[in-house]
Amino acid sequence: MQLFLGIDGGGTGCRAAVADVAGHVLGRGAAGPANIASDPDKAAENILAAAGEALAAAGGGAVAAAGLGLAGANAAGATERLREALPWPRVAVVTDGITAVKGALGPDDGVVVALGTGSVFAVQRAGMIRQIGGRGLVLGDEASGAWIGRTVLARALRAVDGFSDMTPLLAGLLDEMGGPDGIVAFSLRARPADFATLAPRVVTSGDPAAVAVMMQAEADVAEAVALLRASDDLPVVFLGGLGTAFAKRMAERFAICAARGTALDGALLLAREAA
Amino acid sequence: MQLFLGIDGGGTGCRAAVADVAGHVLGRGAAGPANIASDPDKAAENILAAAGEALAAAGGGAVAAAGLGLAGANAAGATERLREALPWPRVAVVTDGITAVKGALGPDDGVVVALGTGSVFAVQRAGMIRQIGGRGLVLGDEASGAWIGRTVLARALRAVDGFSDMTPLLAGLLDEMGGPDGIVAFSLRARPADFATLAPRVVTSGDPAAVAVMMQAEADVAEAVALLRASDDLPVVFLGGLGTAFAKRMAERFAICAARGTALDGALLLAREAA
Repeated sequence: MQLFLGIDGGGTGCRAAVADVAGHVLGRGAAGPANIASDPDKAAENILAAAGEALAAAGGGAVAAAGLGLAGANAAGATERLREALPWPRVAVVTDGITAVKGALGPDDGVVVALGTGSVFAVQRAGMIRQIGGRGLVLGDEASGAWIGRTVLARALRAVDGFSDMTPLLAGLLDEMGGPDGIVAFSLRARPADFATLAPRVVTSGDPAAVAVMMQAEADVAEAVALLRASDDLPVVFLGGLGTAFAKRMAERFAICAARGTALDGALLLAREAA
Repeated sequence: MQLFLGIDGGGTGCRAAVADVAGHVLGRGAAGPANIASDPDKAAENILAAAGEALAAAGGGAVAAAGLGLAGANAAGATERLREALPWPRVAVVTDGITAVKGALGPDDGVVVALGTGSVFAVQRAGMIRQIGGRGLVLGDEASGAWIGRTVLARALRAVDGFSDMTPLLAGLLDEMGGPDGIVAFSLRARPADFATLAPRVVTSGDPAAVAVMMQAEADVAEAVALLRASDDLPVVFLGGLGTAFAKRMAERFAICAARGTALDGALLLAREAA
């Protein structure tokens, strides 16, 4: 029996699904992180582990094609290096942003705003996907969890310096993290996921500093959506750990739809297209 | 003979000077980087090497006190750890920003704007120094060389996405660095000094993107100076590799003075104060 393998891999974990030609999922698997830009060897290892688990659960069979949506797939050289480690006859590798869009919209036109540890924005028109953002925290990832966490910490330091008002949230963060020096020390070792741990309390807070950070985040989201929609009035799907919170906050600005499926569904769709 | 030891250590190198009680410099030394937050062991090693060279050049004698101005000295725990590695009876450790201010202003009131790989802003009033900024590139260092380099790269990616106009400078950077993927890959491995290598061509460019980045940088400098001056009209001293360029650009906004001395002069002054 011909099987199709879908992989959804990001900075926090990697999921695999095996489906038959009709799209029925026969087996699933999971493993650790699969960001092929920041740790390519570990990513390949986790992808193979998750795939092996899914294939075993499906009871065996030949993989006709694999579709992989992976964090870091847009970094130079990253996908070429990965392909050498993968045994399947046909392999399509795209960013996890692309598989998220395919899963979320299916065949429909629409805009996708994905807000997790990172952020990415995309539009699909007649099956063609255009993606913007998704560049990582150093140069982009506006409105992501990591961006929100980093921005609120920078704001705490600015408040210490007197550039803006000290608020209860900022004072609490300073206290918790050992003052300005502790925040600087944290920033030197923090990865995007570490900054993102601060986001939930910012997103739900009425603190003036949190409100200011979220206004900036929402403005970044609105700018990206406007750029992608152009003159159309496409519906917007919010994805990711912070997607629901942003969808609620921005419900009056856009027509918002629920996602049709997951990034793993999108990866399986990619595999069937690759076959 | 009682000697005073001054150390000026930053991300690119470490300089030492030994002076007598009258302030005459008797010997000098130099060694590699001394950022005690990002690489404390290497910093201690380079500080001791530079000091040894300066003491040997001075022909020997007992160090009565040492004054150290070091990058990263504001990070939590950094100075405590360093002190254990230093053999001198009295040791004062401050950030390289503080010694730069002491050297630049001597006993005078004034504002110091230091713009190198990082940035820091300070005011001295009646011998008391208040410093702001200097938090590192992740959370601050606005208008620094690293900030300018990172900002222009982020802008190149935003231009690719269509958020702003593509300009000759941005197109040139994209071409040189392997397109958006190459820039993202660079950003994942780049240290502040790597970003800062891009700053000189931005500072001197008439390219619209460079002009926009520099306007933002100058606005950040002006905001910091205004905060530090409060209602006074203190003169401003620009320091660091980008100091001259910014002083020229901002000459109409402030009364600008030349520095009286270097950060190493400030470190020697700190050593005499510590004795």
